[in-house]
Amino acid sequence: MAAPAPAAAPAGKGILLKADPIAAAYRDEVKSMLAQASTKPKLVGILSTSSEPSKSYAEFTRRQCEELGVEFVLKKTGAALEAELGEGEGVEEAIIEANEDESVNGIMVYFPIFGPQQDHYLHQVVSPLKDVEGLHFKFHYNLYHNIRFLNPKSLLETVTTPSGHTTSTIDGEVPPPGMVKSIIPCTPLAIVKCLEYLGVYNRILPYGDRAYGKTITVINRSEVVGRPLAALLSNDGARVYSVDIDSIQEVLAQSDAVVSAVPNASYKVKTEWLKDGCICLNVAADKNFEKEVRDKASIYVPAVGKVTILMLLRNLLRLQQYQRIQEESK
Amino acid sequence: MAAPAPAAAPAGKGILLKADPIAAAYRDEVKSMLAQASTKPKLVGILSTSSEPSKSYAEFTRRQCEELGVEFVLKKTGAALEAELGEGEGVEEAIIEANEDESVNGIMVYFPIFGPQQDHYLHQVVSPLKDVEGLHFKFHYNLYHNIRFLNPKSLLETVTTPSGHTTSTIDGEVPPPGMVKSIIPCTPLAIVKCLEYLGVYNRILPYGDRAYGKTITVINRSEVVGRPLAALLSNDGARVYSVDIDSIQEVLAQSDAVVSAVPNASYKVKTEWLKDGCICLNVAADKNFEKEVRDKASIYVPAVGKVTILMLLRNLLRLQQYQRIQEESK
Repeated sequence: MAAPAPAAAPAGKGILLKADPIAAAYRDEVKSMLAQASTKPKLVGILSTSSEPSKSYAEFTRRQCEELGVEFVLKKTGAALEAELGEGEGVEEAIIEANEDESVNGIMVYFPIFGPQQDHYLHQVVSPLKDVEGLHFKFHYNLYHNIRFLNPKSLLETVTTPSGHTTSTIDGEVPPPGMVKSIIPCTPLAIVKCLEYLGVYNRILPYGDRAYGKTITVINRSEVVGRPLAALLSNDGARVYSVDIDSIQEVLAQSDAVVSAVPNASYKVKTEWLKDGCICLNVAADKNFEKEVRDKASIYVPAVGKVTILMLLRNLLRLQQYQRIQEESK
Repeated sequence: MAAPAPAAAPAGKGILLKADPIAAAYRDEVKSMLAQASTKPKLVGILSTSSEPSKSYAEFTRRQCEELGVEFVLKKTGAALEAELGEGEGVEEAIIEANEDESVNGIMVYFPIFGPQQDHYLHQVVSPLKDVEGLHFKFHYNLYHNIRFLNPKSLLETVTTPSGHTTSTIDGEVPPPGMVKSIIPCTPLAIVKCLEYLGVYNRILPYGDRAYGKTITVINRSEVVGRPLAALLSNDGARVYSVDIDSIQEVLAQSDAVVSAVPNASYKVKTEWLKDGCICLNVAADKNFEKEVRDKASIYVPAVGKVTILMLLRNLLRLQQYQRIQEESK
C-alpha cells in the first residue's frame, strides 16, 4: 500500500488526506476479483428523487463501474424521471423488478428518499442476495451480533438463529467450509478501511481485535451509519463512544479518532475539543469539522465516498458468488 | 353486535363512544377461538423501559390474558428490571430467547424503546411466526401490496415474491387452499375495526371495498401506525389523506372520518376545521382532539386500546395455528 502523500502544510498542521490512496488498494482488489469472475456483474442503480447529491452519486457510480468493467444500469423513477412525478414514486416497484430480474447481481438505491422510517422499510424490500449496500436487516443483525460468516442459503430465511452461522473467529479471515463472509454495510465498512489505512487499526494485533487500545468517537447514531459503525469498531476491540451531537466535549478529549456523519450543514465539531494528534474523518456531505481542524488533528480525511463505492463493488462481487452458490444448490 | 350506548349529551353534541362495545364482539370471537385451540397459547411480553404507559399497557395485557385464558409471561429487562440498568438494555436478547423458546406462541415488545430507527430494527428481530403485533417487514410488505393471504411457510423466507402469495380477493374472506390470512399490524387493524363498527365501512358493499365512497384523513405517517393504516383503508376502497400535522385544514373539511395518532401532548386538531357530522378517533396517548370536538363530530372515540389488545390476541391465535402448520410440514 502506497504511503499517503502529505499535503504541503504550514508547520504544526496535520495532514490533509484525500481518500484516493486509500481507495487505490481496494480498486486493485476489485479489479482482480473482476478478472476472476465468471461473468461480468450487473449493478442496477435506482434513482427516484430530484436530489442533486444523489444524482451526482449515481453518475459517480456509473464512472467507477465503467472504469472497472462492471455493467451499470441506472433506472430512474419518480421525480428523477419526470419533474411532475413525486419524489420516490415508483421506487419500490423498481426494486421488486430488479429483485426478480435474474440478470441483475446487485441493487443500489439512492437514499435518502422518504426519511428514515419509510427508507428503512425500503431497505428490507431489496433482496439480501442483491443488497450491495448491506442495508438489509440480516446484515445489521450479523453486525450487531458479531456474526462474520453465514451460509449463503440463510440469506433467504427471515429468522436468524445461531445454527447456520458462525461468530467471530479471531484466528483468521477465512470462512469455515460451506460458509461465506457476511455483507457489511458499505459506508461503515469504508470508514473502517480508512481507519485501518490510517493506523488506528494495528495490523500487529490479531484479526478481529486490531482496534484494541483505541478510543473512537462516532458522532451519529443512525441505523445506516453510526450504529453499525460503532458495532464494527467495537467488534474489533475499540472502546467506542457512540454519541449524538450534544455533550461530546468530554469524550472527544479522550478519543484517538473521531468520525462524524451528521447530515446538517451548520454542525461543526469544535477543534478546541479534540485531543491533540487525533485522527478525524468526515463522512457527512457537508463538512462536520471546522476549517482549522488540522491545528489539532494529525490527519484529517474530508470524505470517504471513493472508498465506499469500492466496498460496494466488492460486496457486488461477493453477492454474485453467493447467488451462484444459491443457484447451484437448487 | 350491540348498538352503542350513547352518552347523555347536551343538544347538538355528538356521541362520546368508548371502545368497550367495539371490543365486546371481538372478545367473544377470541373466546371462541380459544375454546377451539388445541393448547392454551402462551404470550411473552417484553418490558425493557421505565416508561409508565408501557408498564400500564403490560399490566393491561396481563389482565386481558388472564380474563380470557391466555398464558401471559412478562419478561422484564433493562430499566424495567432495575433502576441502574439502561433503558432498553437486554431487550434484543430477550426477543431472541423468546424466538427460540418453542413453548412461546407470541411475542409482544413494549415500544417505544430507543426511537423509531432502532425500534424498527427490533421489529425485524421478532420472528414473523410469533409477531402478534404485526410489526415485521413481511406484514407491512403484504399490507402495502394488498396481499391478504400467504403460505405459512413463506413467513420464514426473506424475499417476498408474487409466487406463494395471493392478492386481495373481493370474492370473500376465505383464504385459498394451503393459504392463511396475513397478519395485520394490531393498532391499524383495531382502528379499521372501530371504523367498521361506526359505519364508516359499509357492510352492504363487497368485502375488500367497504370503505368505498368515504374520505378519511389519517394524521400520522409513521411506519407503525399512520402509513399501514392508510394502506389498509385504501385497500378497502377509501379515499385517504395520509398527512402530517401541518396544512390539514383543507383535507379535514372533506373528511368523513379523522384518525389522529400524534405522540405529542400539545397537538390538537382544531374542531372548527372538522366537517360537520364527521367521525373522530383518537389513537394517541394524549388526546389529539380539542375538548369540544363533539360540537362538530357525530361520534368521537377517545381511545382504541381495548380493541387493539383483542386484535393482538386474535393474531396470537392465528400464529399459533400457523406454527402448527409449520411444525407439521417439517
